[in-house]
Order: sequence, then C-alpha cells, then structure tokens
Amino acid sequence: MNEPVPTLDDVAKMAGVSTATVSRCLNEPGKVIETTRDKVMKAVDALGYTPNFAARVMAAKRSYTIGAIVPTLDNAIFAKGLQAFQEALHARGYTLLVSSSAYKPDIEKEQIRTLVARGADGLLLIGYEREGQIYDYLARQNVPALVAWAFDADGPVPSIGFDNHAAMRAVTQAAIDRGHRRIAMISGVCAGNDRAQKRLDGVKTAMAEKGVSPDALAVIETAYTIEAGEAAFARLMARTPRATAVICGNDLLAVGALQSAKTVGIDVPGDVSLTGFDDMELARIVQPTLTTVAVPHREMGQAAADELVAMVEGTSPGRSRLLETEIVLRASLR
Amino acid sequence: MNEPVPTLDDVAKMAGVSTATVSRCLNEPGKVIETTRDKVMKAVDALGYTPNFAARVMAAKRSYTIGAIVPTLDNAIFAKGLQAFQEALHARGYTLLVSSSAYKPDIEKEQIRTLVARGADGLLLIGYEREGQIYDYLARQNVPALVAWAFDADGPVPSIGFDNHAAMRAVTQAAIDRGHRRIAMISGVCAGNDRAQKRLDGVKTAMAEKGVSPDALAVIETAYTIEAGEAAFARLMARTPRATAVICGNDLLAVGALQSAKTVGIDVPGDVSLTGFDDMELARIVQPTLTTVAVPHREMGQAAADELVAMVEGTSPGRSRLLETEIVLRASLR
Repeated sequence: MNEPVPTLDDVAKMAGVSTATVSRCLNEPGKVIETTRDKVMKAVDALGYTPNFAARVMAAKRSYTIGAIVPTLDNAIFAKGLQAFQEALHARGYTLLVSSSAYKPDIEKEQIRTLVARGADGLLLIGYEREGQIYDYLARQNVPALVAWAFDADGPVPSIGFDNHAAMRAVTQAAIDRGHRRIAMISGVCAGNDRAQKRLDGVKTAMAEKGVSPDALAVIETAYTIEAGEAAFARLMARTPRATAVICGNDLLAVGALQSAKTVGIDVPGDVSLTGFDDMELARIVQPTLTTVAVPHREMGQAAADELVAMVEGTSPGRSRLLETEIVLRASLR
Repeated sequence: MNEPVPTLDDVAKMAGVSTATVSRCLNEPGKVIETTRDKVMKAVDALGYTPNFAARVMAAKRSYTIGAIVPTLDNAIFAKGLQAFQEALHARGYTLLVSSSAYKPDIEKEQIRTLVARGADGLLLIGYEREGQIYDYLARQNVPALVAWAFDADGPVPSIGFDNHAAMRAVTQAAIDRGHRRIAMISGVCAGNDRAQKRLDGVKTAMAEKGVSPDALAVIETAYTIEAGEAAFARLMARTPRATAVICGNDLLAVGALQSAKTVGIDVPGDVSLTGFDDMELARIVQPTLTTVAVPHREMGQAAADELVAMVEGTSPGRSRLLETEIVLRASLR
C-alpha cells in the first residue's frame, strides 16, 4: 500500500520511448504502430500504471462508486444477485457500475483497469480464475476486491459465495440414489471458469463415491445458453448407450435440453431425467418443472455489498462467507 | 457548449454557504444537516455542477468509456440489446459501464451524474421520459446522449429505437381480427415510462380503429415480472364479463399470465388468448408458445453503439433511426 505510484516517466523509461508516445498509446492507440504500442502496454502492465493522472487524484478521495464485472449481462444468470447488490449499495450511498466481460479474460482485465481508472472505490468479481497479476495490481492500487458466485477461504481476495462442487455433487447424488447409472453432463466451458470446473468435478466426485465410474461420464462443454443446451442434448442422445440422466451446468442448458427432448420425442422424465443449476424463474415455468440447485442470489448480492463497503470504508479487513445452496426437487428428475 | 463550467464557488454563492460546506455535502453528506444539504443540492442541480474537479480534467480528454443506464438488470429485458451494444463498443475500443435505476427517476438522475463525473464520453438512456433539466445538464457538460428502446424524431436527444405504439397497435389488431372484442391489458407501470404508456395507447388506438370501445378496456398496471403477471391475470379473470384476449405489456407478464391460467384451469388459447412483447427466448419455450412482438434487440444495440461513438468522436451530429418490429404469431393467440 505504501509502494510509490508508478508514473508516466517510469513507463516511458521501461518501454524506451518518450512520455508523449506513452500518452499517445493510452489516448489514441490507433495512431501508434503496433510494435511500439505493445512495448508500451507491456510496461504499463508490468508497472501496474493507471493511465490517467486525474483518475488517481480522484481515487484519492472516495468516489462512492463500486464496480462489478460479470461474465455476461445476457440471460439473467447474474441479474438477480446484481440487483440485490445494487439495492444494498444504494442504501449505503454508493452507485454501482457494471461491466460485462463476455467470459473473456482479456476484456475482464481491461474492464478492471477502466473501473479503477474511473475511480471505483471497490470491485466485485465473479469467481477466482484470472491472472494472479490482476490481484497484485488491485492491491497496489489499493482498490479492495471481493469475489462472489464462488467460495475459497484461502483465495487472494475474500469471497461471499457458495460451494459449486458440493452443490453439484449433491444433485448428482440425488440422481444416482434414484437408480441412474448412465449419466451425462452438459457443462459450461471450464477453461477460465472455476465455477463450471467445480460443478463438473462435483458430478465426478458423486459418481466415484457411489461406485459409478466417472470415466464413463459423457461431457459436452458449451456456452451457457438455451440454444447451446438444445444442440448438446441432441448430440448426447445420439450416443449409445444413451444416458438416463443428464446433469446440466445451469438452468439455461437444462431448458435447452428439454426443448430438444420435445422436438425429438424423448420423454422427460420418462425416458431421460434432467437437472439444472441456479433455480431461475424459468425452472418452475417449463413443463416438466426442473429439478435444480437453488442459489441464494439475493442474499449473496446483499452480503457482498455489505462486506465490500466495509472493506472500502476500512471497517473490515475482508471476511469471506460461505452461503448455503439447496436442491429443489421437481418433476424433471425421477 | 461554450458556457463557462460552474465552479464550487458558484454553488457556494448560490446556496449561501461556504465552499467547505459544499465540499462536505458532496463528499460526506451524512455529516451535514438536512436543510443545508437540501440548499446545496438544489444549487448543484440548478447550476449543473459536477462534483469532482478531477473528473472535469479527465472529461476533457476522451476516456473511451460509455455509460448506459437501464431501468433493470433483472429478467433479461435489456440484456440482449446491451450485450450487442457492448460488443460493438468493444470493437471500437470503448468500454461500457452499465447502471440500473430500478425504474426510479431519482436513482437514474444520480447515476447520470455519477457516470459524467467518472468521465463517461457518452451515455445511452432508455426512453425519453425524464426531467428536462437532465438533458440541459448533459448538453452543458458536453456529454452526448442517445435514447434507445423508444423513438422520437423530435426528441431532445436522438434515438435509435422502435415505435412502441405502432407495434402494440398491430398486435391488438391481430387479436381483434380473430374476433376478440372483450380485451384486457396487463401493462407495465406507465408513470415515468414512455414505452409502457405508448404500448397502452397502441392497444386503445387499435380498439378505437376497429370500432371496439376502448372505454371497456380493463387495464392493470404492474411491475414487469412473471410474478406480477400471475397476480394481475388472476385479478382480471375474476371480473365479469371475462376478457377473451389479454394483451400483455411484455413477455414476462404474459408468461406470468400463462402460469396463472394453468393454476386455475383456464385454457390458453381455448378460453383466453394471450400476447406478449419482446420475443424473449421464453416466448418459444412456454406451452402454448407465445404470440408476441419481436424487437430487433441486437440490431438496436449495435446501431446505438455506432451512432453514439460517432457523436462522441464528432463525426455525426446525432441521427435518429427507426427500426422495424414484427408480430410473431404463435399458439397463444387464436
């Protein structure tokens, strides 16, 4: 925290260019040739330089602005939790600015930098999986960060979240307890997404514990959308022997699977059982209704706001909290 | 645009307090008594003062940041359009920061101020209905703004949107053409929401044009949620004579109405026809599938990004564009 703040001069020196060139790279990157721009941006990264001096001045005072970077604004996966987060922040006099990274680490990094440069007092991040130097950068900038939608008591920053592994293990156990042995999974893309990876691991753990070989698990990794769920389910159903239970990484994938089943005349749950994750409103709207994992979205958003504000205001060193999830048994699992 | 930028001194003079008091009001409002705070905030509003000097410095250079303020992040109403908006901005080197006002004008105003103070180069706003002084403020701050999800060639700022009135008129005409005369509407809350008001007006226009008295139209205004749609439908069905077609202000309300119908054993479309608005993914997932208005969300988001960037970069004075909507006829209307 008491490290000297890197200056434009430091960046210029490290990159071996003039300060004017550094300025141009930051303000009008299109006007600088690529090799120079790369050199400068590497120096900016290495030093953790924040492009805008005015932003530094501003950051010295509290801005009463909190940033949140979520993987997507589409499809309401994060919407309910964010809404609660925002309401709780508003009650404490803070404004929330949200950015969406489209599940791309490079975009997330750029957005973290933008929010810090715009003077955000603190940041909410989803999950832990990102380059370690981002955490170093935030520490150097003295911007507290909190992770949600995941939990790790030993993570580089505190988290208010839930145990993705345990939740998916429990829902898989429920399927195995009902006699299912041929299990398949439609998973989110695991690369760069610790939540998706932990959910997949949870399925494997439950299988191993119940004496069902996880080697036999057919897994398709795909985007978290209804359409992707439809396509993945159709592919899984073409395999023999056919799975009798398909565990889906979230409700959107499960709803897509259900649509696909209707199209090709597979009865759910008569022929195949399905489960989701999130307990979105969709889960009780579709026919058959969806067995899923209820995530305490509102509680998580609210608790995250309380904790992050306490960190920003220096009344908490940052305390992690594990929230409970719950299996909601509905018609799609038999 | 060449008006002098109001200073802290101007605010202090107008409010009749010291500059230190103005500072305290802006930075530690909790420490100032309410009557003083009110006086100061009125002066801040009247002058269009932006609290942070550093932000002004920053705003003088481009920040490559665009702000968007949407009424809600919940339920994916704006998600698809925003995602396209963000992708198009990203391609042009701009980062999007999103804020959600929870359909509250005061919060929206505060967020506009925050985004300007954080150095946003331009703002995307949803619909036109807000205090006129907000448009004056943005003009004084020289921050271009663009409206989406509504269209008004003569509005105070340009818009890239669609005609809510014409779209709802068309879907109501489709219902009347199928013989429906007893029509009811589950509408969004019209106060402060020009899109909801125009949709309601569209229903009335269609009825009048087709010789069905709009005086007989039963309307319930409620929040844009599935739950609110459920409750409203139940109330409408308790009235006699019962409507044979229920026009809903958006798909969430229609899906809620459908749920309610299932619960109480009303057949859709056998007993009652239903229509929605937005053509969310939900609309084709529910049973029966939903007749609705397809809004060009992605096209709108993309075009809005292109136009707003052109305004920020001074290559366009701000050109409005009307996009087409389309009626999607599905099973819920008979």
